[in-house]
Amino acid sequence: MMYTQLSKYITDRVAIGDDQLNVVLSHFKPLMLKKNEVINIIGHPARRMYFVNKGCLRVYFLKVDGNEVTRRFAFENTFSTSLVSFISGEPLTEFTKAIEATELLYISRDDFYRLLDVIPAWEKFYRNYLEFAYVTNTKRLQSFATQDATERYKLLLKENPHYVLRLSNKLVANYLNISQEALSRLKSKI
Amino acid sequence: MMYTQLSKYITDRVAIGDDQLNVVLSHFKPLMLKKNEVINIIGHPARRMYFVNKGCLRVYFLKVDGNEVTRRFAFENTFSTSLVSFISGEPLTEFTKAIEATELLYISRDDFYRLLDVIPAWEKFYRNYLEFAYVTNTKRLQSFATQDATERYKLLLKENPHYVLRLSNKLVANYLNISQEALSRLKSKI
Repeated sequence: MMYTQLSKYITDRVAIGDDQLNVVLSHFKPLMLKKNEVINIIGHPARRMYFVNKGCLRVYFLKVDGNEVTRRFAFENTFSTSLVSFISGEPLTEFTKAIEATELLYISRDDFYRLLDVIPAWEKFYRNYLEFAYVTNTKRLQSFATQDATERYKLLLKENPHYVLRLSNKLVANYLNISQEALSRLKSKI
Repeated sequence: MMYTQLSKYITDRVAIGDDQLNVVLSHFKPLMLKKNEVINIIGHPARRMYFVNKGCLRVYFLKVDGNEVTRRFAFENTFSTSLVSFISGEPLTEFTKAIEATELLYISRDDFYRLLDVIPAWEKFYRNYLEFAYVTNTKRLQSFATQDATERYKLLLKENPHYVLRLSNKLVANYLNISQEALSRLKSKI
């Protein structure tokens, strides 16, 4: 039961035989987080890739002025890690926190990379994942430089309306990098 | 001769047989650019991946206030494309310009993706490329939010000192997203 969502997530994206799928799944282990629990330690490298079965993770970094900027939220049926650190082995520069009680499956970095060499479908799955991550992350970070708050809010409503439905005003405002008051004004205008 | 650098670039990164390497190389065609020539059209999707044999490309986008921000420079022996558009097929949102006379080899997007399916070493090569692109691009874009001008300049000196040696002060300042005057002050301070 616990592996149903992950199994579907993978087979929706690549052609993979049952035997190979089971090898992949066998390397994932469960992890339960309480609300507000943090799962990485700044200064250490990212050593795990997470799949969210239930709940939600918030990934954020600190600006020069000490304010937090949310890079992304990972809701159910998405993978999450600090990919820069996961790839490069460099120390983490961002936090990952459960914003509600969260059920995860995770695979270690070592197992993840070992599977790439022996299961071609896993290499293809990872390539697709990297493409998706590159596109969404670049758009997200570039939006801070190229869009004003109104444009960012409109884009959010278009691409991720469930963020506004499910998250507190405080978190939505933080995601848009504006104050809660500015968000209220935007909501009344649009 | 024209394919020597590209050939070395690939074989330095993945194990690939001569036959398969020649198949890959056969899909690359030469393109010569004059100084200041632009090779993409905003509003159209990116249809080519470029390899720089000689010269340098500058990739930049426009901020809300109309100012240009340099996302990256691609010097000799690097690949370059607008990867978000190349992957997603969405219209381009950034410009690519030759900042000096430049000699390129390019492969069409269709050929590039077709090779992924038939040459496993090419899939692995692309996976490595995506990992590198994800890391460098995320660091670059995140630096705008998390680092001040002094930190960005120090990082540049550490990771890409040839930028400062080879590029005009105007381009270095633009890359750091500061004025030429601010760059002069930084240079005298450090």
